[in-house]
Amino acid sequence: MSAGGEFESLEEILERHVPEAQLSEVKRILFGKEITKLLLPEEAIETAKECNFELKGYGFEAAPEQLRLPRKIRVGLIQNHIVLPTYAPILDQINAIHQRVGQMVEVAAMCDVNIICLQETWSEFLTTLIPHLNVDCFHQLAKKYNMVIVSPILEREKLHNTIWNTAVVISNSGNVLGKTRKNHIPRIGDFNESTYYMEGDTGHTVFQTVFGKIAVNICYGRHHPLNWFMYSINGAEIIFNPSATVGALSEPMWPIEARNAAIANHCFTCAINRVGTETFKNEFTSGDGKKARNDFGHFYGSSYVAAPDGSRTPGLSRTRDGLLVVEMDLNLNRQISDIWSFKMTGRYAEYAEELSKAVQRDFKPNIVKEE
Amino acid sequence: MSAGGEFESLEEILERHVPEAQLSEVKRILFGKEITKLLLPEEAIETAKECNFELKGYGFEAAPEQLRLPRKIRVGLIQNHIVLPTYAPILDQINAIHQRVGQMVEVAAMCDVNIICLQETWSEFLTTLIPHLNVDCFHQLAKKYNMVIVSPILEREKLHNTIWNTAVVISNSGNVLGKTRKNHIPRIGDFNESTYYMEGDTGHTVFQTVFGKIAVNICYGRHHPLNWFMYSINGAEIIFNPSATVGALSEPMWPIEARNAAIANHCFTCAINRVGTETFKNEFTSGDGKKARNDFGHFYGSSYVAAPDGSRTPGLSRTRDGLLVVEMDLNLNRQISDIWSFKMTGRYAEYAEELSKAVQRDFKPNIVKEE
Repeated sequence: MSAGGEFESLEEILERHVPEAQLSEVKRILFGKEITKLLLPEEAIETAKECNFELKGYGFEAAPEQLRLPRKIRVGLIQNHIVLPTYAPILDQINAIHQRVGQMVEVAAMCDVNIICLQETWSEFLTTLIPHLNVDCFHQLAKKYNMVIVSPILEREKLHNTIWNTAVVISNSGNVLGKTRKNHIPRIGDFNESTYYMEGDTGHTVFQTVFGKIAVNICYGRHHPLNWFMYSINGAEIIFNPSATVGALSEPMWPIEARNAAIANHCFTCAINRVGTETFKNEFTSGDGKKARNDFGHFYGSSYVAAPDGSRTPGLSRTRDGLLVVEMDLNLNRQISDIWSFKMTGRYAEYAEELSKAVQRDFKPNIVKEE
Repeated sequence: MSAGGEFESLEEILERHVPEAQLSEVKRILFGKEITKLLLPEEAIETAKECNFELKGYGFEAAPEQLRLPRKIRVGLIQNHIVLPTYAPILDQINAIHQRVGQMVEVAAMCDVNIICLQETWSEFLTTLIPHLNVDCFHQLAKKYNMVIVSPILEREKLHNTIWNTAVVISNSGNVLGKTRKNHIPRIGDFNESTYYMEGDTGHTVFQTVFGKIAVNICYGRHHPLNWFMYSINGAEIIFNPSATVGALSEPMWPIEARNAAIANHCFTCAINRVGTETFKNEFTSGDGKKARNDFGHFYGSSYVAAPDGSRTPGLSRTRDGLLVVEMDLNLNRQISDIWSFKMTGRYAEYAEELSKAVQRDFKPNIVKEE
C-alpha cells in the first residue's frame, strides 16, 4: 500500500502470492502470451531512480519473415502527477510540470524510444481552462532525439475562441506533423467535459511517421469501439489512448477496453492514464447525491500496452509517476491478421448499410415478436 | 489440476492464494463491482452433484427506481462435453447428449431460470456434418417450464441444401420465435469453418421475449465489435455468445471480448464455451506446420456473464460440465447508460458516413504525411 492507502499494482500482488507452479497459467489467462523484459541502460535506470519515477521495459516478439525485415520500434508511455498544487500560480505549475516531463523524456531517449506519448492534457488539469499549445519545448527534443512526440493538450483555437481537447503529433524532424481532436466527450457527473470543449472535428486522422502509422484516441473515446475501429480502417498500426480517469466505475474497464481494441483491430494499443489525487480550493458537486468535495478521486495510472495477439504488458504503478518502454515488431499486426482474419471476415459493407439505416429517423429496429 | 492436466479456474487459484486483505482489491480490478451469490434450491444442488456437473449462481443488482418496477430475470448458461466418442454411431451420440443437456435444463428449471442458452452446435461437433433442427425436444420443456430456450445448432436448409450455423430461439410458449444465423465465419487453421457453412443472411435480429429482448452473437462474431454493436442498436438487452473455442491464442481474449461488449453497449452479455477435448479417428493437419493430430485441443469452458457496469461473474470450470445461473435486473442497462452515455455520445451518423466511404473501392485513407 502507498501512503495514500492505494495499492501499487495487481501484477505485484499476483507475483508475490500465487505459487510459481500456477503463476504462469494465471498470467497466461490474464495477460496472454509471455512477453520479454527489456534490458534498459544503467544510466536510464539510475536517472529514473534519482528522479523518483518507475521505469519498466518489455518487448513483444514477432516471427521472423522471409520477405519482410523486422519492424522493431520502441514506444514510451509517460504517466505523471501534477507537480505543484492546483492553486499555485498557473505559470509556476506549468513550468514545474514541463521540467518533470522533460526529465522523463530524457530517460526515454536513453532507452532509445522512437515514439513517446504523454497523458491527456498533460500540462494542465482539465478544468484549469488556460489552454495553449504546449509544444514549443518539444520541437527541439524531438529533433535532438529523433523521436516522435505525441503531446495531448488543451488547444485554444483563437479565431473562434473555441477550446479543443487535442493531441499534437511532433515528428522526429521537430516539425508539427499534425493534430487530432478528441472525438467523444464525456457527460458523466464530474466529467461534464462538454463545458470545456466539444466533439472533435478532425475525424480519424492517422499520422505516417518514419517509425510507423499512429493514431490518437483520446480518453473517453476508448469506450467507443467504432472510434478505435475507424482509426484502424485508416491504417493505424499503433493507437495511443492518453487518458485521465478515476474511480471504481472505470478501473475494472481499464484493462478491458484498449486491449479489446488491439485484438479486434489487429494493432497495438497504448493506454496511458494520469496518476495521483488532485485537490482544488473550491468544493464542487457532481449531481450524484454525494457531498461536496475538493477532489475528483484517485487517477490510478496503470498505463499499459496491448498487442494484437491479446497479450499485454503489466501496468505501471497505480500511484507513482512512470515511464513504460515497450519494444514491438510491427510485423506482428499482419501476422495476427493473417491467422485470425478479423478484417477479411468483417463484412464492413453490410455494416455501412445497416448503420446508415439505423441513424435515420424512420429506423425500425429488427425485432421479432411472437404473434 | 484435473486428470487431463488442465487446471480448474483462475478464480479458484486467486481465492486460494491471495490474502484476504488484498483479495477484494484484486477482484475489484479483475472482475468489477462485487456481485452476490444466489441461494439455489437444495434439490438443484443435489441433482447437479448426482449428475456430476458444476452449478453456480450469482446475482447482479440494480438500484431501485421510483418510476419503473425492477425487471429481475434469471438466465442459465450450459457448457458441456460430448457424451459418447466422436466415432460412436451418430444417433447414439445425439441421444446421449440430448439426455445430458435435458438433465441440465431440468436443473435450470429448478433454479427458476427464465432464459437458457446452450453452447454452439451443442448436439454435434462442427465437423460431424449431420445438421438437423435439434429443437423438437425443447418445445415441450420450454412450455412446461415457462422458459425461453436458445438452441444453437447446425441447420440444413433443404431447398438449397445449404448448411447454416444457427441459433433457434424457442419461446416460453413452446413455439419457435425465430432463428438467427452466425454472421462471421472463421477462416483460421483448424477452424476453416467456411467449408461447412457461409456467413449468415439474417442480419442482426433481436427477439422480443416476455423476459426481455435478446440476441445471439454466435462464436467468432465475438471478435467483431460491430456485430455486438448492431445487435445493441436493434435493442438487445442481453446478447448470448454460444461458442466453441480452444487454445492458447483465444483463451486470453475470452475474458475480454464479451465483457468489452457489455460495457460498450450498455447491455448484458453471456459468453458460453464448450468444454473438453474431443478426439477423432482420422488425423488432420491445419496448415500450421505442426504434426498431424487427432484433436483440436482443449475447449476450456469458462462460461461467464458480464454486466454493463463492467462487472462479471466468475467463470465456470475449465474442465467440467456446468450450469451458470445468473439473476439480473435489466433496469441496470439504462441506469448505466444514463451515467456513462456511450450511446448518446456515439456520433453514429458520422460513423455511418465514414464507414460508407471506407467500403468504396476508391477509398483514400485519412493519412497525414510530412512533406
